[in-house]
Amino acid sequence: MGNLKNSLFSPVEEELVLVEEGIRAVADVEYPWLVELLGYIVNSGGKRVRPALTLLAGKLSNGGNLDALIPVATGVELLHTATLMHDDTIDISTKRRGKPTAASIWGWGVATLAGDYLFSRAAELVSQANNVRADRLFAQTLMALCTGELEESFSSFDLNQNRQSYLRKIGNKTASLFAMATESGGIVAEASEEAIEALRSYGYNLGMAFQIVDDIFDFTAGEEELGKPVASDLLHGHLTLPAILLKEQRPDDNPVNDIFEHRDIERNLELAIQMIRNSGIVSECYRSAQDFITEACRALDIFPESPSQRKLIELADYVVERRQ
Amino acid sequence: MGNLKNSLFSPVEEELVLVEEGIRAVADVEYPWLVELLGYIVNSGGKRVRPALTLLAGKLSNGGNLDALIPVATGVELLHTATLMHDDTIDISTKRRGKPTAASIWGWGVATLAGDYLFSRAAELVSQANNVRADRLFAQTLMALCTGELEESFSSFDLNQNRQSYLRKIGNKTASLFAMATESGGIVAEASEEAIEALRSYGYNLGMAFQIVDDIFDFTAGEEELGKPVASDLLHGHLTLPAILLKEQRPDDNPVNDIFEHRDIERNLELAIQMIRNSGIVSECYRSAQDFITEACRALDIFPESPSQRKLIELADYVVERRQ
Repeated sequence: MGNLKNSLFSPVEEELVLVEEGIRAVADVEYPWLVELLGYIVNSGGKRVRPALTLLAGKLSNGGNLDALIPVATGVELLHTATLMHDDTIDISTKRRGKPTAASIWGWGVATLAGDYLFSRAAELVSQANNVRADRLFAQTLMALCTGELEESFSSFDLNQNRQSYLRKIGNKTASLFAMATESGGIVAEASEEAIEALRSYGYNLGMAFQIVDDIFDFTAGEEELGKPVASDLLHGHLTLPAILLKEQRPDDNPVNDIFEHRDIERNLELAIQMIRNSGIVSECYRSAQDFITEACRALDIFPESPSQRKLIELADYVVERRQ
Repeated sequence: MGNLKNSLFSPVEEELVLVEEGIRAVADVEYPWLVELLGYIVNSGGKRVRPALTLLAGKLSNGGNLDALIPVATGVELLHTATLMHDDTIDISTKRRGKPTAASIWGWGVATLAGDYLFSRAAELVSQANNVRADRLFAQTLMALCTGELEESFSSFDLNQNRQSYLRKIGNKTASLFAMATESGGIVAEASEEAIEALRSYGYNLGMAFQIVDDIFDFTAGEEELGKPVASDLLHGHLTLPAILLKEQRPDDNPVNDIFEHRDIERNLELAIQMIRNSGIVSECYRSAQDFITEACRALDIFPESPSQRKLIELADYVVERRQ
C-alpha cells in the first residue's frame, strides 16, 4: 500500500497531516522515560488506512463538526496501535514492520502498560469530540476487538474451527475497527441515521475483505514479503479461510489435522501450503473477499457522487486487488 | 474492612446490591469459554469501596440523575478490577485475595486480553450515563493509572526515588481512581462545579492516605495478614514512604542501598523491617496519612450535614484507623 496516501487519500490529505501530528503528540509527555517509549511506538509507521476512513466518511457525510473528526481519526489509529502492542506481547513477537517490538526492547510488562496507556489516550482523543455516541462506540469496539482476540486464543489448535467461527472471529478482531472508523466519521459529522448505518456497513464489509485477503497472503506470499514465516497462523493453531476450505475439501485426510496433532509439522506445513496454492482454494477465498467488497460498495449507493465516495469505492477495489 | 458494607456504606446499601448485580452481569456473555473466565474474575471478591464512594458522592450532591450512578459506580469497580488483572500478569503473581490469579490458570496472554476486555466493559458502563464529561474523566483516569504503573516499572531499583516521586506515583496509581470515583458521582448527579471539585479533592486525598497506610502495612503486618511476603515492595525495588524515610534518616549506611545493590538481601530485608518497625518512621508515615485525611474531610465542609456526608467522614477516619 505504498503510495496510498498520494492517491486514495487525496480528499483528506490535509487532515491526515493533522492526524499525523496528533499521533506524534502522544509522545509529548512530562516524563523523559515515557517520551522515549511512546516516541518509539508512535513513530513505528503504519499506513493510516483507518484514520483516512474516518476522515473520508466524515467528508462524505458533509455534515457539521469537521474539526472534531481529527481527534477521533487519531484515536482510531491509536486504538489500532494499542491492539498491535498487546498482540505483540501476547504472541511474544520480536519484530513488527521490520523493527524490534517495544516488548522485545522494554520487556512485556512495560509493553502491556504502554498498550494500556495508548488505549486511554485513544479514548481521551475520541472524547474530545464531546459526543457520547462516539464514546460508547469506542468502548463497544474495544469489547469486540478483545472478544475476537480471546476467541482466537481459546480456539487455537481446535479442529472445530469452521467458516462460521472464522467469520465471527474476524468480524470482531478486524472488521469491528474498520466499522468504527467509518461509523464514527458519520456520527461526528452529524450524518443522518441512514448514512451512519451505510458507513458502518461499508467499513465492516471492507474490514472483512481486508482480513480475508491478509489471510490469503499468509499462504501465497513469501517469507520476505510477509516479514514472518509463511502460514504462521496455521503453525500457531489458527485456522483461517484457506485452511478451513482445505479441511472441507479433504475432511478425512489432510495435513491440517496432522499439524494440529503435532505430527511431522514441517513436512505437513509445506504440504498444506502447496495444496492451498495449487488448488481452487485461493480463487474461492478471493471470491469470498469480493462478495464483502460488493456489499461494502453497495452500501455507498445512498450517497451522491463525490470525490470522497469515489475514493472509498477505489479503496474497496484496491483491498482485493493489492498484492501485499 | 470486613463489615464495611453493614456500617459505612449504609446510605447506599440498596444501590450497592445493584452494582453487585451489574458486576456479575459482566460474565453474562454468549461465549461459554468467556463466561467461565469472566465469571472467575468478577466473583473474586473485593470490598467495593470505590463504587460505594461514587454512590455516596452522588447522594451527597443530591442532584439529578441517580439512576445513571449505578452503571458509573459499576464501571469504576471494573476499572479497578482490570488494573489488578494487568498488575497480576506483569508481576507474575500467582495469588490474589487468597485465590489463584486468572493469569496462573489461563496464562498471561489470556489474562492480558481479559484485562483489556474489562477496561472496555468499564468504559461502556460509564458511557451509559450519557455524559461526555464522565467519559473523558474515565479516559484521563486510565491515563493516570498507566502513568503511575509505568513510573513504578521504570523506577524500580532506582535509589533516586524520593518523597516527591513517591507522592506523584501514588497520586497516579491509586489516588486518581479514588478521585474519579467521587468526582464522577458528582458529575453524574449534576452537582455544582464547587461540589464536584470538593468531591474530587476528598477522593484524591482519601486515596493518598489509603495507599500510604497500605504501604505501612507492607512493613508492619505479618505475612499471613498480607497474603504476600513482608516488605515485598522493597524486595521488588519499589521505595515506599517507610523505606524513603529510613534512607533519609541514614543516608550513608542503610540496608536499602545494600538490597538495591543485591547484597545479602535476606539479612538486609530483615534489618530494614526491624529498623522501620522500631523507630519513629511508622508514626511519621501515619501522620502523613492523617494530613491527607484532614484535607479530605476539610473538602466536605461545603456540604450540609447528611447521612452520606457523615459516612464519608467516618470512612476517611477508618482508612487511617483500620488494622489491615
